[in-house]
Amino acid sequence: MTICALATAPGGALGIIRISGPQSLEILSRVFRGSGDVQTYLPNTIHYGHLVPLLQEGSGEVTPHEVIDEVMVSVFRAPHSYTGEDSVEISCHGSRYILNKVLEQLIACGCRMANPGEYTQRAYLNGKMDLSQAEAVADLIASTNKATHQMAMSQLRGGISTELERLREQLLKLTSLLELELDFSDHEDLEFADRSELLELTKKIDSHIARLAKSFETGQALKQGIPVAIVGKTNVGKSTLLNALLKDDRAIVSDIHGTTRDTIEDTIDINGISFRFIDTAGIRQTTDEVEQIGITRTYAAIDKARIVLWLIDAEPTSEEVQEMKERCKDKSLIIIVNKIDKQTNISIEELSSCLSVLRSHLLTISAKFGTNLSDLESAIYQAANIPSLQENDIIVSNARHYDALTRAHEHLERVLDGLNNGLSGDLLSEDLRLTLDTLAEITGGQITPNEVLGNIFKNFCVGK
Amino acid sequence: MTICALATAPGGALGIIRISGPQSLEILSRVFRGSGDVQTYLPNTIHYGHLVPLLQEGSGEVTPHEVIDEVMVSVFRAPHSYTGEDSVEISCHGSRYILNKVLEQLIACGCRMANPGEYTQRAYLNGKMDLSQAEAVADLIASTNKATHQMAMSQLRGGISTELERLREQLLKLTSLLELELDFSDHEDLEFADRSELLELTKKIDSHIARLAKSFETGQALKQGIPVAIVGKTNVGKSTLLNALLKDDRAIVSDIHGTTRDTIEDTIDINGISFRFIDTAGIRQTTDEVEQIGITRTYAAIDKARIVLWLIDAEPTSEEVQEMKERCKDKSLIIIVNKIDKQTNISIEELSSCLSVLRSHLLTISAKFGTNLSDLESAIYQAANIPSLQENDIIVSNARHYDALTRAHEHLERVLDGLNNGLSGDLLSEDLRLTLDTLAEITGGQITPNEVLGNIFKNFCVGK
Repeated sequence: MTICALATAPGGALGIIRISGPQSLEILSRVFRGSGDVQTYLPNTIHYGHLVPLLQEGSGEVTPHEVIDEVMVSVFRAPHSYTGEDSVEISCHGSRYILNKVLEQLIACGCRMANPGEYTQRAYLNGKMDLSQAEAVADLIASTNKATHQMAMSQLRGGISTELERLREQLLKLTSLLELELDFSDHEDLEFADRSELLELTKKIDSHIARLAKSFETGQALKQGIPVAIVGKTNVGKSTLLNALLKDDRAIVSDIHGTTRDTIEDTIDINGISFRFIDTAGIRQTTDEVEQIGITRTYAAIDKARIVLWLIDAEPTSEEVQEMKERCKDKSLIIIVNKIDKQTNISIEELSSCLSVLRSHLLTISAKFGTNLSDLESAIYQAANIPSLQENDIIVSNARHYDALTRAHEHLERVLDGLNNGLSGDLLSEDLRLTLDTLAEITGGQITPNEVLGNIFKNFCVGK
Repeated sequence: MTICALATAPGGALGIIRISGPQSLEILSRVFRGSGDVQTYLPNTIHYGHLVPLLQEGSGEVTPHEVIDEVMVSVFRAPHSYTGEDSVEISCHGSRYILNKVLEQLIACGCRMANPGEYTQRAYLNGKMDLSQAEAVADLIASTNKATHQMAMSQLRGGISTELERLREQLLKLTSLLELELDFSDHEDLEFADRSELLELTKKIDSHIARLAKSFETGQALKQGIPVAIVGKTNVGKSTLLNALLKDDRAIVSDIHGTTRDTIEDTIDINGISFRFIDTAGIRQTTDEVEQIGITRTYAAIDKARIVLWLIDAEPTSEEVQEMKERCKDKSLIIIVNKIDKQTNISIEELSSCLSVLRSHLLTISAKFGTNLSDLESAIYQAANIPSLQENDIIVSNARHYDALTRAHEHLERVLDGLNNGLSGDLLSEDLRLTLDTLAEITGGQITPNEVLGNIFKNFCVGK
């Protein structure tokens, strides 16, 4: 079936409509008037002409009055196209009216509107890319900074596929040796595969898979932005700090206590990595009965965060410090003394020893005047503890891949257990086969069920 | 100077970046890695490759890690391009990060970001289109329905240019004859141009120009949408009617009197023409002292409207009718009896004669249940009184053209006056020359001052 869709966002100077499928050129020939015979256009060539309404049977020629648009069409021939099928791209003027009219004509000619991601799905089905590369296309389009761009590009260029291929080759070798033993099962004692070598190799592969799975945490953090909570008492300057970091007036700032009613989320990029800031409602006592921090309202924010910025403008009590440290024990806690433009009665050295925190996790700033904000940004970046991305590092950022890697790891653990307990070759090879199949799910080397494909492509935009 | 810009709206699957100017291919060659030598690419061909960062002097080759995007580039050669210059279109993945990165590289290579409409301005300056056609490009991109699309297409295809060329030719003939007389000015009585023929021809041309100028009213109405006011007492169903016509919930509907606080504007298309609806705050008495219509708050809406829909749910008093008719005397007034699902005590025949309106300007509907809404739409369309657009009708929709036509008309009126008063040929020919120059402003046949060009192109989108 030949499909069509708008591949660009509507509203620009140009709009690109994509056609893909065996009838692409025949359909084009019915609504395009250019020079020469459309169906003989050479691949990878561009042609100027008029997009006209589909002629009804028996009616005369199209009049100039009826021309829908002056367009450029780009012709691609199977298999040398994105989808691997015959394809056409029509470059129209970006009017929604025109784009709708053109799509209308294509549908009248027998095109079907493409589903989300259907072009990329066809590219996968036609062997133009594997499944993990297809998924990378969506990630690439959604990429907003250096980190997400690099992860998507690496995946699109086959980074994870190559890595998995290497692991699968080694596993296949192990499996073949074990399966060879089964063919000679009459000879009970015959072991082609040296068990200690096998154990070593399996361990090595397993730790590699575990490392890939582990990288998902980083991948997710990079993809979604590393959550940072700014906490502290009311009026200590949390909104001012957030605004200073965001460099705009997203949060409402005022001197009135409790101005920030809703949790506002926004992101900033530091060194190409997204940090997602969670501005919290101020820590405030609604009753004056007891002096206490009253962190209750910010608990949720802290729980979601990976980095906590604790903003103070006076020395905290040891109870406050104790409670905050307890709360943040699996987070990176940065203590920030704000309003240094106003007071000087806090000694950082003293505070540092009293809080027993590293000097590098204790900063003095003025959110209002922007003092030391770049130091704070460096501290935040370091606190994120992102492994430096090396050229050939593979970071898994896709939940489906993570799931498969985790299951592959479990299968391999069973293989290791079996090896340690002298399990027979047929049982070992079964677990090895399961590992191989599970890893193949990632690149789609195995036959992928339609349901899985549907899930993968449903979140694509239409037109890609 | 070679320019670059994003030609599509950001946010789609694809984004197209356009380069135009003498260095287009040289610049491309510095950031594009495809097969073969970029600078020898044939015109109108498409090439797959990698968009890479501009290499710094002395650094090695680009590593795969640094690739910005996998792209398709389309190559156009002067003069066979939109601008008439060497041009390149880069089809990237639609990520804002990628699009920014690519533009960054192009600028590093010496490209300048294009100004709004600069591609089209260059097309004009390079003789690819005249000025009225260039203006049509912006109109075409902005077209939202059949009427605006047809006007823009006709203008783009040289509709008004051809019409003006014909008129200018006739005027030129007249002028030449008159100027020939001047060359033989020694012979005082010599008249090459028969004055009565001249008068006839001038009259004919003048009435043609006047007709074109007159069409601006229609052109403007079609372009901006024909303003329609819905007026009536509170709770008579104005918002419900608007919603029923808009087929969505744009206006807030409730049973509470005075719900509609702000004037909401929205448009619907009827037979390919836009109608701009002005929902008015209800006519309501804030004091109960006097029974009167209290139209005050809707005066402004009526003044702006070309069609007034007066919504009633009970028989109006003769004073009310009198006042409304007075208000709407240069408008099309349609009286609509709403809530026909509820009451039957209004006799349309009686009302019709009592209101002394045409039966066709009096309708009964139920806004709530959508009864007779298509009749209402037909009545609105007819009330707009748009001359049916014939295939070759030229409608002027551009204020600059209207201004020039109006001035040309004034010059020609002076020619006519002069002819009637036996003015000498040299004075006549001066006014004819002025007419010719004024008409030439429209197509830009005369040298167009930069200021005028700036004004024309500043409202274009960037990238066109």
